[in-house]
Amino acid sequence: MTDEFYMRRAIELAKKGRGWTNPNPMVGAVIVKDGSIIGEGYHEKCGELHAERNAIASLTESAEGATIYVTLEPCCHYGKTPPCTEAILEQKIARVVIGSRDPNPKVSGKGAKILREAGVQVEEDFLREECDALNPVFFHYITTGLPYVVMKYAMTADGKIATKTGASKWISGEEARNLVHEMRHDYMGIMAGIGTVLADDPMLNVRLEGKKSPVRIICDSMLRIPLDNQICQTAGRYRTIVAYAGEKGNAIYLEEKKRSLEKLGVVLLRVPSEKGEINLQLLMRKLGEMGIDSVLIEGGGTLNEDALQSGIVNEVKAFIAPKIFGGRGGKTPVEGFGVEKVDDAIKLQFTRISQVGEDILAEYKVLEEM
Amino acid sequence: MTDEFYMRRAIELAKKGRGWTNPNPMVGAVIVKDGSIIGEGYHEKCGELHAERNAIASLTESAEGATIYVTLEPCCHYGKTPPCTEAILEQKIARVVIGSRDPNPKVSGKGAKILREAGVQVEEDFLREECDALNPVFFHYITTGLPYVVMKYAMTADGKIATKTGASKWISGEEARNLVHEMRHDYMGIMAGIGTVLADDPMLNVRLEGKKSPVRIICDSMLRIPLDNQICQTAGRYRTIVAYAGEKGNAIYLEEKKRSLEKLGVVLLRVPSEKGEINLQLLMRKLGEMGIDSVLIEGGGTLNEDALQSGIVNEVKAFIAPKIFGGRGGKTPVEGFGVEKVDDAIKLQFTRISQVGEDILAEYKVLEEM
Repeated sequence: MTDEFYMRRAIELAKKGRGWTNPNPMVGAVIVKDGSIIGEGYHEKCGELHAERNAIASLTESAEGATIYVTLEPCCHYGKTPPCTEAILEQKIARVVIGSRDPNPKVSGKGAKILREAGVQVEEDFLREECDALNPVFFHYITTGLPYVVMKYAMTADGKIATKTGASKWISGEEARNLVHEMRHDYMGIMAGIGTVLADDPMLNVRLEGKKSPVRIICDSMLRIPLDNQICQTAGRYRTIVAYAGEKGNAIYLEEKKRSLEKLGVVLLRVPSEKGEINLQLLMRKLGEMGIDSVLIEGGGTLNEDALQSGIVNEVKAFIAPKIFGGRGGKTPVEGFGVEKVDDAIKLQFTRISQVGEDILAEYKVLEEM
Repeated sequence: MTDEFYMRRAIELAKKGRGWTNPNPMVGAVIVKDGSIIGEGYHEKCGELHAERNAIASLTESAEGATIYVTLEPCCHYGKTPPCTEAILEQKIARVVIGSRDPNPKVSGKGAKILREAGVQVEEDFLREECDALNPVFFHYITTGLPYVVMKYAMTADGKIATKTGASKWISGEEARNLVHEMRHDYMGIMAGIGTVLADDPMLNVRLEGKKSPVRIICDSMLRIPLDNQICQTAGRYRTIVAYAGEKGNAIYLEEKKRSLEKLGVVLLRVPSEKGEINLQLLMRKLGEMGIDSVLIEGGGTLNEDALQSGIVNEVKAFIAPKIFGGRGGKTPVEGFGVEKVDDAIKLQFTRISQVGEDILAEYKVLEEM
């Protein structure tokens, strides 16, 4: 078997950590000796062992003289666990094949250097593109301190997210709706606007076995969220953050509402913009500081436009259903004010298209303004 | 080489007739003897030789004892040209491999039967699905007398066909716009609403070398089309039909306008609905009677909704551009009244997705109501 074969195995292992490792990266490791895999592992959960140490723990024989394939440069610092470079040296592993570089420019290359200086043969950037593709969230969060933001919506083939009466259950098919629950597991936070909360009284949790629910983040500038809705009533069970601006309106009402929400377990974040609305950039900075490395936006047209115009969105995932609603009054995925000129459009870059049951999923990167 | 190889060659040949054979089908034929292709041809243009006769005309040696692969059952009647079954028998061809059956139930199987009775070995339904896929237009038109209608639109990833100010140049990239010109060549007619004509003053022709322009059909219930616009001024050069309802309004004005339009070469069709608007079903029947086997609708949201609700649309082709306009006032591909309930949506069936330059092209069949 080739180096490529083993690194691809390490990539597959890494993916098993999806949704559990945040804000850590997904990493996989495979140890090979005399053409046989003698150990393998992955980073399973934030706070637990790194991939290299899990692979070592699974060894069926001595790793002396073996090769280890690891999708991300081994760490060389004491964090929640001791450095992996040490473990590799202890095991007398002879060769290390590395996929992604450590995204922290101050540390990048340091793990490789320590190993090389100890006499280990090191190869870097091996299948780097595929390895990098495991961790867009981690790379973004670790370098900017901001959550990686994915906007998801489901629309008809004529661009509607609801009929003119607001009906939207269900636009996409069962497979797509299941995939949305997988996405909710993958990202640490889920964000919706108060409009969606008032209209649908959603739970915004994950209803798949063996998956975790995200932190719920509601944008509610005036704190209009009703105390008896599902989000508030389950705030003790699922971490819930309500962002507000709260400069207009009745101060006494606001103080009382805040106390009631906090009593239910809701965390309140005041993030006003100059106009007295919610400042999404500031909100993202605060969420990043709270350790939330990624946010899935399941908003309506107003929140979606605000998010895109604020420049906080990294990716757009659009499900397109094989249906046509028609109607000048139908709701579309991005509303608000909108651009006037074609050239002022927010530019995307198409990354992937797939068929999900009867629906299409189009995935895009949001391009930064020049 | 296998039968499959030669039939696929015949399919490739058939495609060369795209846009030129209407209202005839695209057909290809390959004659093979002792493992070599000794003749091949396709139906090049309506009124000219059929594929079998073109293949025979190209023979490099006697076809006695040869096999002919033909994508559609050979005709057995005198039309514009004598029956192809006769030509096959004259050439003493020993074996005939047929893809599609003749869609006319009264004729289907008759060509094969004549050949069999004359001692020729006949195989039917060979790669039938692929062969049938050459001619959805022909099959529909020959069995219903109605044109095959394809609705095409280009929208942003958030479902807009124009910004709130109406700007729409250009939503899709160059490759997609070129492909639209190919489509205009493929179908016999192109249809737009008066709204689009007034807003953009388009030519609705084909600006690619070696391609033909479609018959232009404008839906203009009140005959508001200005005499000095591009469509009217070029009606002598490109066949142009204006459909109207014309029951409201000033009768004298209408008569004068009609005379002026006819002087410019415009063909007028009066197709009023009960409500005094254009009856698209009736218009399609009339276009079918005029020999127009296919129509590409490049309408705005109003015409598109009317066409879908009238049940005249067979296919939807949606280009999706990697851009976001936003805006509650943005125009969407299907507007009009729209449905109230999700279940009342017009149902599509996804058939193909492809990347065209930076854009995505999603293709759907329109499912008939149960």
